[in-house]
Amino acid sequence: MKTTPLLLLILLVFTMDANAQNPKPRARDLKIPFEGTPGKFNAITDVPGIEVGHKTIIKGNGKLEVGKGPARTGVTAIFPLGKKSIDRVFASWFTLNGNGEMTGTTWIDESGCLGSPILITNTHSVGTVRDAVIQWYVNKNIGDGNYSGDYSLPVVAETWDGFLNDINGFHVKQQDVFDAMEGAKIGSVEEGNVGGGTGMIVHSFKGGIGTSSRIVETKIGTYTVGVLVQANYGSRDQLTIAGVPVGKEITDLKPSAGKLDEDQGSIIVVAATDAPLLPHQLNRLVKRVALGVGAVGGRGGNSSGDIFIAFSTANPETGAMDKLANLQMLPNEMINPFFEAVAQATEESIVNAMIAAETMTGVNGNKVYAIPHDRLIAAMKKYNRLK
Amino acid sequence: MKTTPLLLLILLVFTMDANAQNPKPRARDLKIPFEGTPGKFNAITDVPGIEVGHKTIIKGNGKLEVGKGPARTGVTAIFPLGKKSIDRVFASWFTLNGNGEMTGTTWIDESGCLGSPILITNTHSVGTVRDAVIQWYVNKNIGDGNYSGDYSLPVVAETWDGFLNDINGFHVKQQDVFDAMEGAKIGSVEEGNVGGGTGMIVHSFKGGIGTSSRIVETKIGTYTVGVLVQANYGSRDQLTIAGVPVGKEITDLKPSAGKLDEDQGSIIVVAATDAPLLPHQLNRLVKRVALGVGAVGGRGGNSSGDIFIAFSTANPETGAMDKLANLQMLPNEMINPFFEAVAQATEESIVNAMIAAETMTGVNGNKVYAIPHDRLIAAMKKYNRLK
Amino acid sequence: MKTTPLLLLILLVFTMDANAQNPKPRARDLKIPFEGTPGKFNAITDVPGIEVGHKTIIKGNGKLEVGKGPARTGVTAIFPLGKKSIDRVFASWFTLNGNGEMTGTTWIDESGCLGSPILITNTHSVGTVRDAVIQWYVNKNIGDGNYSGDYSLPVVAETWDGFLNDINGFHVKQQDVFDAMEGAKIGSVEEGNVGGGTGMIVHSFKGGIGTSSRIVETKIGTYTVGVLVQANYGSRDQLTIAGVPVGKEITDLKPSAGKLDEDQGSIIVVAATDAPLLPHQLNRLVKRVALGVGAVGGRGGNSSGDIFIAFSTANPETGAMDKLANLQMLPNEMINPFFEAVAQATEESIVNAMIAAETMTGVNGNKVYAIPHDRLIAAMKKYNRLK
Amino acid sequence: MKTTPLLLLILLVFTMDANAQNPKPRARDLKIPFEGTPGKFNAITDVPGIEVGHKTIIKGNGKLEVGKGPARTGVTAIFPLGKKSIDRVFASWFTLNGNGEMTGTTWIDESGCLGSPILITNTHSVGTVRDAVIQWYVNKNIGDGNYSGDYSLPVVAETWDGFLNDINGFHVKQQDVFDAMEGAKIGSVEEGNVGGGTGMIVHSFKGGIGTSSRIVETKIGTYTVGVLVQANYGSRDQLTIAGVPVGKEITDLKPSAGKLDEDQGSIIVVAATDAPLLPHQLNRLVKRVALGVGAVGGRGGNSSGDIFIAFSTANPETGAMDKLANLQMLPNEMINPFFEAVAQATEESIVNAMIAAETMTGVNGNKVYAIPHDRLIAAMKKYNRLK
Repeated sequence: MKTTPLLLLILLVFTMDANAQNPKPRARDLKIPFEGTPGKFNAITDVPGIEVGHKTIIKGNGKLEVGKGPARTGVTAIFPLGKKSIDRVFASWFTLNGNGEMTGTTWIDESGCLGSPILITNTHSVGTVRDAVIQWYVNKNIGDGNYSGDYSLPVVAETWDGFLNDINGFHVKQQDVFDAMEGAKIGSVEEGNVGGGTGMIVHSFKGGIGTSSRIVETKIGTYTVGVLVQANYGSRDQLTIAGVPVGKEITDLKPSAGKLDEDQGSIIVVAATDAPLLPHQLNRLVKRVALGVGAVGGRGGNSSGDIFIAFSTANPETGAMDKLANLQMLPNEMINPFFEAVAQATEESIVNAMIAAETMTGVNGNKVYAIPHDRLIAAMKKYNRLK
Repeated sequence: MKTTPLLLLILLVFTMDANAQNPKPRARDLKIPFEGTPGKFNAITDVPGIEVGHKTIIKGNGKLEVGKGPARTGVTAIFPLGKKSIDRVFASWFTLNGNGEMTGTTWIDESGCLGSPILITNTHSVGTVRDAVIQWYVNKNIGDGNYSGDYSLPVVAETWDGFLNDINGFHVKQQDVFDAMEGAKIGSVEEGNVGGGTGMIVHSFKGGIGTSSRIVETKIGTYTVGVLVQANYGSRDQLTIAGVPVGKEITDLKPSAGKLDEDQGSIIVVAATDAPLLPHQLNRLVKRVALGVGAVGGRGGNSSGDIFIAFSTANPETGAMDKLANLQMLPNEMINPFFEAVAQATEESIVNAMIAAETMTGVNGNKVYAIPHDRLIAAMKKYNRLK
Repeated sequence: MKTTPLLLLILLVFTMDANAQNPKPRARDLKIPFEGTPGKFNAITDVPGIEVGHKTIIKGNGKLEVGKGPARTGVTAIFPLGKKSIDRVFASWFTLNGNGEMTGTTWIDESGCLGSPILITNTHSVGTVRDAVIQWYVNKNIGDGNYSGDYSLPVVAETWDGFLNDINGFHVKQQDVFDAMEGAKIGSVEEGNVGGGTGMIVHSFKGGIGTSSRIVETKIGTYTVGVLVQANYGSRDQLTIAGVPVGKEITDLKPSAGKLDEDQGSIIVVAATDAPLLPHQLNRLVKRVALGVGAVGGRGGNSSGDIFIAFSTANPETGAMDKLANLQMLPNEMINPFFEAVAQATEESIVNAMIAAETMTGVNGNKVYAIPHDRLIAAMKKYNRLK
Repeated sequence: MKTTPLLLLILLVFTMDANAQNPKPRARDLKIPFEGTPGKFNAITDVPGIEVGHKTIIKGNGKLEVGKGPARTGVTAIFPLGKKSIDRVFASWFTLNGNGEMTGTTWIDESGCLGSPILITNTHSVGTVRDAVIQWYVNKNIGDGNYSGDYSLPVVAETWDGFLNDINGFHVKQQDVFDAMEGAKIGSVEEGNVGGGTGMIVHSFKGGIGTSSRIVETKIGTYTVGVLVQANYGSRDQLTIAGVPVGKEITDLKPSAGKLDEDQGSIIVVAATDAPLLPHQLNRLVKRVALGVGAVGGRGGNSSGDIFIAFSTANPETGAMDKLANLQMLPNEMINPFFEAVAQATEESIVNAMIAAETMTGVNGNKVYAIPHDRLIAAMKKYNRLK
């Protein structure tokens, strides 16, 4: 096709506009074939009401001095109903491999509800982040100092960033948590080396935060499933994208010495929907996240904390305390497309995290490479999988 | 008080009428102190819609000839919504000790729903009963021969009656199952040596079927919790009634030789309510059944199958397949009295099973004694616990 | 190369011998690329001691007359330690989607042990098979008529074959169960339309029984992981083999009218190893079976009973009752290759089931096509995935 | 009886010696009848190797000024193998009601192991305590800065002390955690208003830390079961001691205004044994803790975090990473007395916590009464239950 300069210009402007808030290419921009139809932002925030905030902490270079850095870490905050809400949502969680921490899950199991935001950070900062979330609510004087079954048991998850980050220096401070929370917003979500994902590694490439969404059409209405991951798991050998054994095609560009190439690390997945799923149905949904992780090559390795949480923003009376809550429930008979959607969006979120992440150097000069987009495309072509 | 003969007569007639369907004394008739207020029948059938049927099989005497008897067994059927309904109810289950069988539970966990009746029989007849339930629905031509996620996965539970019953003779036949199902009815429930409970032993006394209920008052309405047990567990030593160490007071009247006095056997508990509890809340409820079993002295012994199931008959749209179901949910904040009720009703059901059961002789002359009511009363008096 | 007739003859004889018991091609014969190294038989029986038996029931043709046929069903029996052993093995189980039945699992959860064989049949014959297993042990006079926490709670699983089989005719009889059990043997395992898998459908192609194994090398020894599946799940659209979207390449050859193309049906997976894994480690292993199912396109659809069980034949003192059992345990730190092996062997087992299965016509002329090997190979070529 | 001064002196010396480490009376000193035989200290430390340390924080009086006090809180540390060990023990956990936090449990579920001490504190200090535990190990330079699946995921549990303590003032500091850890020791354990239990309330009396143990005789050896509780749950009405409805006998002496008398609060229970129980057996054990809580009147109220953890100090090769671990396992057939022991020791630990606790006044003059020993004894007498 012959394109005139004018058309090229129009195309360029269009592209720039679409990328205005998120200028980095995403997996779909590279024509990697994913199933299903994403929402407007192709992000967890396509589920109305969800707000996401990041605080990225990058300080210092060179040799590790515990407590001084270098720091490559941060915090990501997800508010199911926005940071101004103190309502509950139905929720459930699942682990593919439990070598990790997600606080607050015991009460989710018992109550079926989530009454706090979800925070993600590094392994050694879970405590600081947890108490900071409580302090944030205490500062807002919610609950008059009494026990809150909601914010007193906040959900904080983690993955390990100690290859790049001075994790034993405990660089995440209370104010960083407040910053991530206060900065939470609707709309597009920054990916890659940001927030809790700053120092993360996935399949021996640079990882971090990724997100995606799916529109689910049913006979009785249209819903959205959104996913956000903090990806820090997997061996190179098992990396698979759209069925293509990418990890066997790109075997170099591994992290510098000292980092084992094994299925270690972790992945935290947050899945959300506006479909009216009850807690036991959210448990079904969140279990299928594992299929999305598996599709990219995750095997729930022994040292991996593959912990997933799902919630539904439907049913505004979920948290009613003094009357019968009026609820709606999607029939189990209509749940299949949601299973498919959550697996797809998980897969795409992980790939988005890789595509957005940039090569990073951290403690002691440890270096982790971003996946090279051109070689990824070449691998997709070799296996006839480019759209 | 001076009572005239006429008043005495009226009282007598009233009493006779109340006992017309259940002439045997029950635990409350012996003034054993239980907490809480039972419903009209003090039975699981106080939850509106529930129907219960028994088929009792007692055949032969003397020496065991496998296949010929003696038979001391049966089947009990509980229909959550009556035998004419093919609707679903929300359900959940729990085990204190899992040395037993309850079929159909995997789908209850997944779907949150129960779409079949609950059948209870002896250990070796679970298969016959299970397939008979399917046959019963096939005979009714429900589902046009297609797969039913409801009746194709029926719930059948068991306890072991081989000390009194020729259990390896497989005396429960398809027609017996049909009889129990067809005979299911509302109203008072026969207790003791009936249905699946026919040959059962509890705390080394004769056990079997028992039932009880509680009225639960909340700020937003009055509900009922009903319980039915097939009690076949426990050692004499641990038998406790209303806090009194009865098993240490009555140490004789043990089963004849060959029966170990250990916490073996099993107990199946069916708990029901008309309060709108969701599956995850029913899981909370059914876990508290263990506290009722514990109160009588159950410890979930190693060879015991202490398996409990709970369902809610509220929410008529539970099984809606082609539209959003409109539901109601009791707030978690109001659930405490239900926990108390189910523990209380479980405790009373077990004691009712013991009080109603009569001394029985079975295979090879094996004999199990009913708890002597007078000595039980004496033990209660000794510890100042008679109402 | 010029080969003399003698050499040809030798090659022929060698080939005949190797294929003597299993003359049909398997997935590897078609050069489909699987990861990992299989054992001698590429079957669950590569784990020493395991015996597998099938009873296939094929009777009648044409119009359905309930009880008369046509019958396309059967029973498959897996003995972890061979049919002569009455010992226990450590075991655990997991469901991806629980719309199915596997009896005996409550005691597995509680005890960590499996003391019975594993039987697989059709949905409506679980009861018959269950009681027949008990009868089989009673006939052998094991246990002297007392309760057995082992064979009194046998493990029987199922998938639905009602599209091809007169499932409401209950064609599996006690003797069929005995036949499958008595016929169990070591060595190669027949695949496809056999045993419990006779009438099964997978991804809208003919399914059934499939098996595979992996040799796992560790620093401290070499172990085997074996898998056997009864595959009856999945939609065509999602069928993926070695990363290739086969279901999107072969969209015809669907079952005749009346069969929905949805992720329905079920898959039962039995995973075995001779590595010394404790029950909690087997739970880790069996969870990864889901990743293998997911790799072929399973999503645990709502009407699917995706139920998996794993056991370890190591630790001969597992069932010691009157002394401390001396055990060995593989370190968690060495478990990763087992996770990979079980996912791989599950994937290959499913594909083996499809490759071995043959087109079948059943009730009312309902027809299900075998996957055409040539078109499968063509699809693999298109995506550059043929070895 | 006439006693000479010398005899009095001898008696006095004897008494002082026996009470030297624990001068307060305990439940058995009041002749409350408990079943079973305790170990030397009647404490969790009767299981050899276990060390317990408390840091009690009591500061200020009068009106609440958030951050300034009054503080009535603390930390308790339990080291399964002593604070010098970095080995793992097998472990498992269970919740009766999950309105609480216990970090580190996801990895316990997955790995079957506990590699950190167990810390107990107030609800809002879990984060501080968690990160302090990590810091403590980092300071000791264990692991060379790498990820530790053990101490990087420490176990920290909590109950709410906000009625007496300025909980939103976050008074527990890193050094307090270090103090509790460094102070851990074998031998008798201080009970009542100490450590994490400082500000706790049980059945509307003053609660806190309590402990007890049982000697378990089996055919193959003698073992110990030890329990430690941080008791902060329950309504007065349901308080039951040795079967006696104490809460109905002592209905006054309730906490001052503002404290609801409901089954709220929480109870953390740590159960330990030197019997070789595997993780799945420890799960069986820890479930029976609920029966002990139930015996005293706990019902797992909605706002209660009734979270229990159990571990076994047997099997020194539990944490072997580079070889097959050689283990021993107690047969399931011998586990019953352990179930009984853990229920008994839990019951006695709670009563010990109440007996040891003293009346306390905290924030805003809020006052919680200790149970009056004389009236408790009178209640026991009334029901003929004094030994």
